[in-house]
Amino acid sequence: MIKLSKFPFKTEKVPPKASDNVSTSLLLQAGFIRQVMAWVYTYTTLGLKVLRKIEKIIREEMDNYGCYEILMPGISPRELWEQTNRWEIEEYFKLPTYDNKFYRLNPTHEELVVPLMKQFITSYKDLPTCVYQIQTKYRNEKRAKSWLLRGREFLMKDAYSFHLSDEDFQKFYDGMIKVYKTIFDRLWIWKDTYLTYADGGTFTDKYSHEFQTLLPIGEDTIYICEECGTAHNKEIVPESGFKCINCGSTKARVERASEVWNIFPLETKYSKPFDLKVLDENWKEKDVIMGCYGIGVSRLMWVIAEYFTKDGKIYWPESIAPADYYIIVLGDNFEKAEQLAKKLEDEGKDVILDDRQGKKFGFGVKIKDAELIWAPNIIIVSDKTLEKWGYELRRLGDKDGKIVEF
Amino acid sequence: MIKLSKFPFKTEKVPPKASDNVSTSLLLQAGFIRQVMAWVYTYTTLGLKVLRKIEKIIREEMDNYGCYEILMPGISPRELWEQTNRWEIEEYFKLPTYDNKFYRLNPTHEELVVPLMKQFITSYKDLPTCVYQIQTKYRNEKRAKSWLLRGREFLMKDAYSFHLSDEDFQKFYDGMIKVYKTIFDRLWIWKDTYLTYADGGTFTDKYSHEFQTLLPIGEDTIYICEECGTAHNKEIVPESGFKCINCGSTKARVERASEVWNIFPLETKYSKPFDLKVLDENWKEKDVIMGCYGIGVSRLMWVIAEYFTKDGKIYWPESIAPADYYIIVLGDNFEKAEQLAKKLEDEGKDVILDDRQGKKFGFGVKIKDAELIWAPNIIIVSDKTLEKWGYELRRLGDKDGKIVEF
Repeated sequence: MIKLSKFPFKTEKVPPKASDNVSTSLLLQAGFIRQVMAWVYTYTTLGLKVLRKIEKIIREEMDNYGCYEILMPGISPRELWEQTNRWEIEEYFKLPTYDNKFYRLNPTHEELVVPLMKQFITSYKDLPTCVYQIQTKYRNEKRAKSWLLRGREFLMKDAYSFHLSDEDFQKFYDGMIKVYKTIFDRLWIWKDTYLTYADGGTFTDKYSHEFQTLLPIGEDTIYICEECGTAHNKEIVPESGFKCINCGSTKARVERASEVWNIFPLETKYSKPFDLKVLDENWKEKDVIMGCYGIGVSRLMWVIAEYFTKDGKIYWPESIAPADYYIIVLGDNFEKAEQLAKKLEDEGKDVILDDRQGKKFGFGVKIKDAELIWAPNIIIVSDKTLEKWGYELRRLGDKDGKIVEF
Repeated sequence: MIKLSKFPFKTEKVPPKASDNVSTSLLLQAGFIRQVMAWVYTYTTLGLKVLRKIEKIIREEMDNYGCYEILMPGISPRELWEQTNRWEIEEYFKLPTYDNKFYRLNPTHEELVVPLMKQFITSYKDLPTCVYQIQTKYRNEKRAKSWLLRGREFLMKDAYSFHLSDEDFQKFYDGMIKVYKTIFDRLWIWKDTYLTYADGGTFTDKYSHEFQTLLPIGEDTIYICEECGTAHNKEIVPESGFKCINCGSTKARVERASEVWNIFPLETKYSKPFDLKVLDENWKEKDVIMGCYGIGVSRLMWVIAEYFTKDGKIYWPESIAPADYYIIVLGDNFEKAEQLAKKLEDEGKDVILDDRQGKKFGFGVKIKDAELIWAPNIIIVSDKTLEKWGYELRRLGDKDGKIVEF
């Protein structure tokens, strides 16, 4: 239970720093985050709560799909990156050591996960398998490509799957798309999130997939086919004009969106340099096929904040709100309020209790903070409502994005 | 539930790499960790489970004491470290950026937490307060000072407290020692862990405190007064001979130990350079007094593993064991075993199910793995035991360190 009378991370009357978008301003004003330098933030207690709830949902769904969580380190030896010809990539940090050598401060973990899994995958019977981690990544970015972006330090869930055949990979990959849909659904952004075909980049000749959430301030442009609904990243739409890669239609509506997750077929790009092979059932040597599945965890917090911002408030989805219940005490009703808070906590609920006293903390101030911090259930314990059930319960948002004004 | 038939992180018949101590060999052999480079490890699923359970205990006790969890970034701007004259410390990493500047890859977080809290501490009424994080730290270490050590990358809980007066700081500090005792107790190492007086280092002229756990392979030597039991780090025992700083006795027993946590009075060393001041009740300006309270989370996993290693097995404390129940299926009793596993899971227990089939996986192989991985309760589901209660339950260790041989 967080009691606001002792809580250090107070809200501000105005956002403490100018920001180019409303949701970041609100996150700052509500005391969820503080900027340390460009695109590098501290998460204070309430921001961290939101982040951890997003992590928990991702973790549950990944575990459900039979993936195993691990934690790889943030630094790694240069040799691993030379083996894949990725040591000299400009936007990957090099970290000088005391003896004039360099480590890598990891921007991604293919170079670590393949040598790791090579120690455990010794037979085709060990396939398929999939491991994931929720880990901080670092990129030596020159400039922000948009309002939020991955920044120089960001939290990601990255998963890596290993397969004997392309067919097996494809089956797993299709299943992962369903897992991602479930995660999005639990985060309440599925209805405006599109599975989007994108360039495979350096990873593959095939298309990769991104999940793009519609946002007016999004950094990406996507083309959604008017006939079949297939979404295309702008980068794969030829200059000659749109043509749907699924149905061939030339009609599309164009939307701004923000990329929250991407998934890639890695084929044998990383298994080959590390010689990750197995013997198949016929004793034939095969390179292991890989897939990789990212989710920008910290980015997702920003996207969700922006998506649910309306009229100067962030209406957090119930599943990741900083608290389940926000209890405002008016008058001298502290004891009753605390009893209620404890009861809710015993039921496994997250509770914020606004027990601040004094003339400065009247109803107006308290309700303004409640709206800024936000919880799906705001309870007001006053003399009047005590006569009824001890509290009054108001739900401020619901899953379909419909917002009940307070 | 982890089913070993699909679990990628298999045990090894022998430790996969030579190691200079038994517990690290066992952690490697059991598949809990893999080394990426010297003192830098990947935690695989079971190692990560142990680590997360240690984190959870620490988090619960810190929250209980009224501390607030936050998450500060891993990198920070050079300017912050110049303000405290710590930019040029050799064992702190400098991280070159694309434009030939440098960030710091953070070895500790005083330079971040003070500017952060300065935004929230505006009055003496905001004091005392304490924030903490569980975060990865990086050090440009030249060599290992012992078998485990903090290494180049390690997980720490670091807490920072803020006070108006020395008296208030002292009161909070004494309370934190009790919190640490509780944490140690929940980790079952309290009876051999000593609150040890140590040098204040660059932080303070006073003594600092360390918690040292007795271990024959520990990196430290401590002197325990024979009269009053006060423990002294070797570094504060003069060459002229031991004299207890508490009772003056000159008799001490000397023990090897490993430092698991330390706590420091920071006085105004970091509040001054960042000008963190408040007005007191009499409108007098005062520098804020600080304390810092560390716990080596990853180090603690190693220390506990070593402490509980006996006869080539790690008898993990019940509170942090990789699983609560380890179920071995013999014969064709999969269905019964899975029902039992599900029942235990519904009760909130962590379960490992050894459902591996085939001639390779007889009783001998299965029980050997169970002992290597370890759970406080090992259940064997066989035809015979099914006739009774469906399983046979054996407890292999208990809190007082007494070990019931299997």
